[in-house]
Amino acid sequence: MHFEMHPIGAVRSPFSETSQIPKGCGAEHRAEGEIEILPEFEVGLTDIEGFSHLFVIWAFHRSEGSSLIGKPPTDDRPHGVFATRSPRRPNPIGLTVVELLSRDGARLKVRGVDMLDGTPILDIKPYLSSIPADQLKRGWLAEAEERRKE
Amino acid sequence: MHFEMHPIGAVRSPFSETSQIPKGCGAEHRAEGEIEILPEFEVGLTDIEGFSHLFVIWAFHRSEGSSLIGKPPTDDRPHGVFATRSPRRPNPIGLTVVELLSRDGARLKVRGVDMLDGTPILDIKPYLSSIPADQLKRGWLAEAEERRKE
Repeated sequence: MHFEMHPIGAVRSPFSETSQIPKGCGAEHRAEGEIEILPEFEVGLTDIEGFSHLFVIWAFHRSEGSSLIGKPPTDDRPHGVFATRSPRRPNPIGLTVVELLSRDGARLKVRGVDMLDGTPILDIKPYLSSIPADQLKRGWLAEAEERRKE
Repeated sequence: MHFEMHPIGAVRSPFSETSQIPKGCGAEHRAEGEIEILPEFEVGLTDIEGFSHLFVIWAFHRSEGSSLIGKPPTDDRPHGVFATRSPRRPNPIGLTVVELLSRDGARLKVRGVDMLDGTPILDIKPYLSSIPADQLKRGWLAEAEERRKE
């Protein structure tokens, strides 16, 4: 069984190389960019303006192969790929939450891009609710942050 | 350009038909189920136990075709597909936030499943941070909820 996914658009971002993307503990994703949807899908954006935040599902189009264990930039210890945001995944799917700033036809101006310029977009969904911060446990990432403070 | 995605596992859920899945305003997803990863990907779950919540990215394997505008169960007005969670999307990708209850090898016991039993899983990622509730706008969904109260 497999599923063939086709881009519905592309990301316009200030990052042309992965080295430019803020990574690691305390990295803040405040960069502004655009989500450019292909004209044939524009009508699918109807009413999206009302949402403050969106899930953008995209493809790691420059990533090759996958690695089930790897050392993320945030830690000096290895972790399983499904416990990280590593690009080297069995399916090269990326997920970013962005803040929707404005819409101009098929172009969404957003804040919080951490993708490369030209990244293919597979889907967009409204961000509907949050897990309250006091109910969230962040595993090895919280531990790595603590170790850095020591 | 296209991307071929292969399942890394499947959802075990109490729902065998879409009609059984709670939908609409105020629907709470508290159902327990399991995320069953294929044995060859189990090592990719290393350290996942430390996270309280996960993003599960999956495929709408029973959905056929797409519709750019549709009426969600939560409203009597039509909206663009990218402003809804409709299964009839250009790429049949689903996204669910689940609470991780426990892990037994390649099986994750989780709360919050809203997928059919047997749903193919494409990726799992740690849920790292939330948008504070007071910064979240929920567009047509909030409006539809208000109208129901009137």
